[in-house]
Amino acid sequence: MKVLILGGDGYLGWPTAMHLAGKNHEVFIMDNYLRRNMALETCSEALIPAPNLHDRVNIFHSLGGKSMRVEIGDCSDYRVLEKVICDFSPEVVIHYAEQPSAPYSMRGFDEAKRTFDNNLGTTFSLIWAVKEHVPDCHIIKLGTMGEYGTPNIDIEEGWLNVEHKGRKQKFLYPRQAGSLYHTTKVLDTDLLWFYVRVYGLRVTDLMQGPVYGLSTDESELDERLLPNFHYDDIFGTVVNRFLVQAVAGIPLTVYGKGGQTRGYLNLRDTLQCVELAMNNPVEHGEMRILNQFAEQFSVNELADRVQRVGNGMGLNVKVKSIENPRKELEDHYYNAAHSGLLELGLEPHLMTDDVLAVMLEQVIHHKTNIDVQKIMPRVKWK
Amino acid sequence: MKVLILGGDGYLGWPTAMHLAGKNHEVFIMDNYLRRNMALETCSEALIPAPNLHDRVNIFHSLGGKSMRVEIGDCSDYRVLEKVICDFSPEVVIHYAEQPSAPYSMRGFDEAKRTFDNNLGTTFSLIWAVKEHVPDCHIIKLGTMGEYGTPNIDIEEGWLNVEHKGRKQKFLYPRQAGSLYHTTKVLDTDLLWFYVRVYGLRVTDLMQGPVYGLSTDESELDERLLPNFHYDDIFGTVVNRFLVQAVAGIPLTVYGKGGQTRGYLNLRDTLQCVELAMNNPVEHGEMRILNQFAEQFSVNELADRVQRVGNGMGLNVKVKSIENPRKELEDHYYNAAHSGLLELGLEPHLMTDDVLAVMLEQVIHHKTNIDVQKIMPRVKWK
Repeated sequence: MKVLILGGDGYLGWPTAMHLAGKNHEVFIMDNYLRRNMALETCSEALIPAPNLHDRVNIFHSLGGKSMRVEIGDCSDYRVLEKVICDFSPEVVIHYAEQPSAPYSMRGFDEAKRTFDNNLGTTFSLIWAVKEHVPDCHIIKLGTMGEYGTPNIDIEEGWLNVEHKGRKQKFLYPRQAGSLYHTTKVLDTDLLWFYVRVYGLRVTDLMQGPVYGLSTDESELDERLLPNFHYDDIFGTVVNRFLVQAVAGIPLTVYGKGGQTRGYLNLRDTLQCVELAMNNPVEHGEMRILNQFAEQFSVNELADRVQRVGNGMGLNVKVKSIENPRKELEDHYYNAAHSGLLELGLEPHLMTDDVLAVMLEQVIHHKTNIDVQKIMPRVKWK
Repeated sequence: MKVLILGGDGYLGWPTAMHLAGKNHEVFIMDNYLRRNMALETCSEALIPAPNLHDRVNIFHSLGGKSMRVEIGDCSDYRVLEKVICDFSPEVVIHYAEQPSAPYSMRGFDEAKRTFDNNLGTTFSLIWAVKEHVPDCHIIKLGTMGEYGTPNIDIEEGWLNVEHKGRKQKFLYPRQAGSLYHTTKVLDTDLLWFYVRVYGLRVTDLMQGPVYGLSTDESELDERLLPNFHYDDIFGTVVNRFLVQAVAGIPLTVYGKGGQTRGYLNLRDTLQCVELAMNNPVEHGEMRILNQFAEQFSVNELADRVQRVGNGMGLNVKVKSIENPRKELEDHYYNAAHSGLLELGLEPHLMTDDVLAVMLEQVIHHKTNIDVQKIMPRVKWK
């Protein structure tokens, strides 16, 4: 299939591109290095330096991987995206091209505006370019489990059947997110659902939990093909932060009580899920929403696991609660459905001790790059 | 009170400005003539030509009205809005500054993008300017009943208590709108609610039904003070279209089956509602949502009323169903709560035969301005 990947330089975009090229799809990557620039501007560079996208494509190709086309451009600019879509005529677009950091989006007006304009602007441009030029194209959009927030009822898979005063209605599951970044994804979903209803677009919206891991079949070919690994307070995830803190010999920083529970996913499973969505397209006028995670646990449980595995490797891992820079529930009900992707054939990789040990080894290998100044929270939700 | 009115040149903005100035509030109006320009560009000028905003302010002042400050500028431009907010330090901002036409928003990419950027951009800039510079300021935002769409259950006032699998959660009432314009207001509500939760802003979001009428105590002082009256397919409401068709001797065009039911409101009641919201501000961190309409009826019932009253005045009014240019349910359940404003003291003006007769007289007075070419739908939801 002809697959256009927006945000193809990102943590998920780049491994997806290699994976799908490896499956003999015709892959076209678009990115404007927004995340690289933001990371540079906020002193939040990734642990392992990565070659630029053209160079990574050439390295992959030189190692026997299939070639890919690359366009460095702003997907939120309609005329730029439209040109690529007309030129390539994709059958599938995978839309990862969003500013992905909650703390960045909460830093101040300029960062909030940049997040809003990029994320909504890209979704808006994509909807229109597909509607106008490739209406049969299947849009696969990366949403986030964070759209749902932490309601006191079960989180269903995208939709909620409500019975009220003896009458019934099916609604988009009501969303209430914890950062502007997550809120832009709520608005993306609203916008996609509106245009699916009116113009019969074909959309899969993947509500993904936090992803961890560096290893995929393709990324392991050469260190220069590894996806970016951020451990800083702005672009890093809690998993990466804990791994780096364990290796650096500083306490794992739990925000507040640590009861925050989320659904986590191995990077290999993101690739599986996106491929499953692609190989099982939806009809015109259908918006399929899938909750994309493999297992749910709390921040405290995650800290315990990293501590146990790290200590088993001879690290001296400590855990410490610090003031929560975010506004969020630290102790809450959480039970999220996630059967849709399993029914499509997902075979989940779980976060076993072995998986954690491999990630710790990868961090140890790059230990000299760790800058412990980048880890403590610089952005507060106040 | 110091009141900043965004979109102060509009159908609601201008009468609100005169009304509040008449109550001795200090009124500052901001507008960039976006709606006037769009109407000009789409051949959709209002029935009665209106002087520019500075001239209208001067006319109002010369007739004994209180003076007002005017700034012609783009509220979606943060630096422009920020300057006004810092300069004036409003205690209340009434936010009407949105592209208000559903058909305009569905015309093509450029119109959709302009609607999206203006409406969301203004709300975004307002949130930030208030948060940064006047955090005690009460934001009164004009939403629309159209945010809810036409669900098969009762429409509650902003929020919905859901019981699901034995557990309970209160959510923003799930919204599903019928045009991009209405969808931008859904996103406005999502965005406001996020920033209310995080930063403790004070917001009243008024879900208003279609408004009709030209007469207010102040607009009747001089014809040049009348609010704009659009009867065209793009900026006109169904009420205005029917009034003009009745006077022009062409059939009232009902879209499809005509069972589309909405809650309607007299312009005088918009002024009452906004004043009631202003005089009863909310606390920090509170978002109050009020459904703002006085009575609900279907398009067929509206056509019947206009026909009956018009015929009583000697007009020969016919009604004709035409193909619906929109995608919407034409026969549906509709029962919307609207007790909040009544509890605050709203005394509704209903759409009586006398009220319809006065509006028909006003249209007859300007009959020579009617251009029947402007009435049939030019934009289709396809």
